[in-house]
Amino acid sequence: MSVAIVGAGPGDPKLITVRGLELVEHCEVLVYDRLVSLELVDRASGAARISREGLVQEEVNDLLVHHGRRGRRVVRLKGGDPFVFGRGSEEVEALVSAGIPYEVVPGLSTLTAVPALAGIPLTHRDTASRVTVLTGTNADGTELDYDHLAATPGTLVIFMGLRRLATIADNLILAGRSVDEGAAVASRLSLGDACVRTGTLGTIARRAEGMATPAVVIVGDVARHPDRLRSLATRTLVD
Amino acid sequence: MSVAIVGAGPGDPKLITVRGLELVEHCEVLVYDRLVSLELVDRASGAARISREGLVQEEVNDLLVHHGRRGRRVVRLKGGDPFVFGRGSEEVEALVSAGIPYEVVPGLSTLTAVPALAGIPLTHRDTASRVTVLTGTNADGTELDYDHLAATPGTLVIFMGLRRLATIADNLILAGRSVDEGAAVASRLSLGDACVRTGTLGTIARRAEGMATPAVVIVGDVARHPDRLRSLATRTLVD
Repeated sequence: MSVAIVGAGPGDPKLITVRGLELVEHCEVLVYDRLVSLELVDRASGAARISREGLVQEEVNDLLVHHGRRGRRVVRLKGGDPFVFGRGSEEVEALVSAGIPYEVVPGLSTLTAVPALAGIPLTHRDTASRVTVLTGTNADGTELDYDHLAATPGTLVIFMGLRRLATIADNLILAGRSVDEGAAVASRLSLGDACVRTGTLGTIARRAEGMATPAVVIVGDVARHPDRLRSLATRTLVD
Repeated sequence: MSVAIVGAGPGDPKLITVRGLELVEHCEVLVYDRLVSLELVDRASGAARISREGLVQEEVNDLLVHHGRRGRRVVRLKGGDPFVFGRGSEEVEALVSAGIPYEVVPGLSTLTAVPALAGIPLTHRDTASRVTVLTGTNADGTELDYDHLAATPGTLVIFMGLRRLATIADNLILAGRSVDEGAAVASRLSLGDACVRTGTLGTIARRAEGMATPAVVIVGDVARHPDRLRSLATRTLVD
């Protein structure tokens, strides 16, 4: 494979896949996201290392095509998973259009890191058999459809929702969700300064004041178990 | 840590995390799921290896507590991610109740493996900003709420829905989803005999006949791109 699109996982360098690390260690060109651990970037010791910061998406696509065309072993290292609200598919489309062989290696999404690292199981046999994943703002700038969300059973997981949390929580309550429903914010999971705060839909916006991004908001009964949550949240994955 | 609950990922042994593999290689007792790659099981060369097959959940919990209490390095290796429709939280609760220290290492869920391995991006800037994840049958045996699901925007991802696919598709159409909406089934992703078939809500049940489990059903416009899908699906992750 010439170009590999690799998910780095949620932050902890040991949460990349074995295959992802192997590709990083043997690449000639590494194009990496801001949130990727520098420890991982350093593992590409023989490679030209290019930060994605400051580049627009088209420039990233062009970089991958440029080096891919020359047959170089290129790794595009992305935070989390390349396809869960990442823009991996745009990069894949650019490679397909240019006829460049590629490989995709998934990464741990923040979504799947929440239960293990924040101690909040997204599904539970008794309380939640559905998970709805959304972003805090629609791509087209329109408001979320709170009526439908309020009637959605199970757990809501909201990416990029921290800054608008007060608005989102208020609107969910106005649309019919209980003010006492469990809610939590998990910030910077596995990034070394992880922070998890819990409350209810009525209190979570205030409790989450001052928390840092990237963060994910969880709404649902699964966030109701602060004891279990605390016991898990104290564990970190780096020795 | 005494007991580690580790996600093995979707099947390919290289899709476990670096941390997960490290724990497997150094454990003294390995309790593993049926769907975990034997290559991974073999990496626990110095350990007592116990298949979970044939054990009920309480027996698994008891095993973890028994060996954990004796201070052994135990790894509970689960397919996919321990918490996305896995029963990791029940095992964690058993360990917490027994006062045994533990660590949780997330794994790649089939959910996040679908885009990379089946070529179907679950989210897309233009077409899908929401993903709803559910199981094909409710835990309490009741029918799915098709009216609400039919009105849910974005992509539906249905675990354990292959056997009931005809019923699910028919009911979604009856409840108002278009018979022409894209749909796909991804079977045994990264297990060496992966298979992806696409169609529409109207055709997918017939097209998916004879496919093997485990499989995941995807409903939504993201499954509309069979060309892009094929180009990705031909890539495998094992060298």
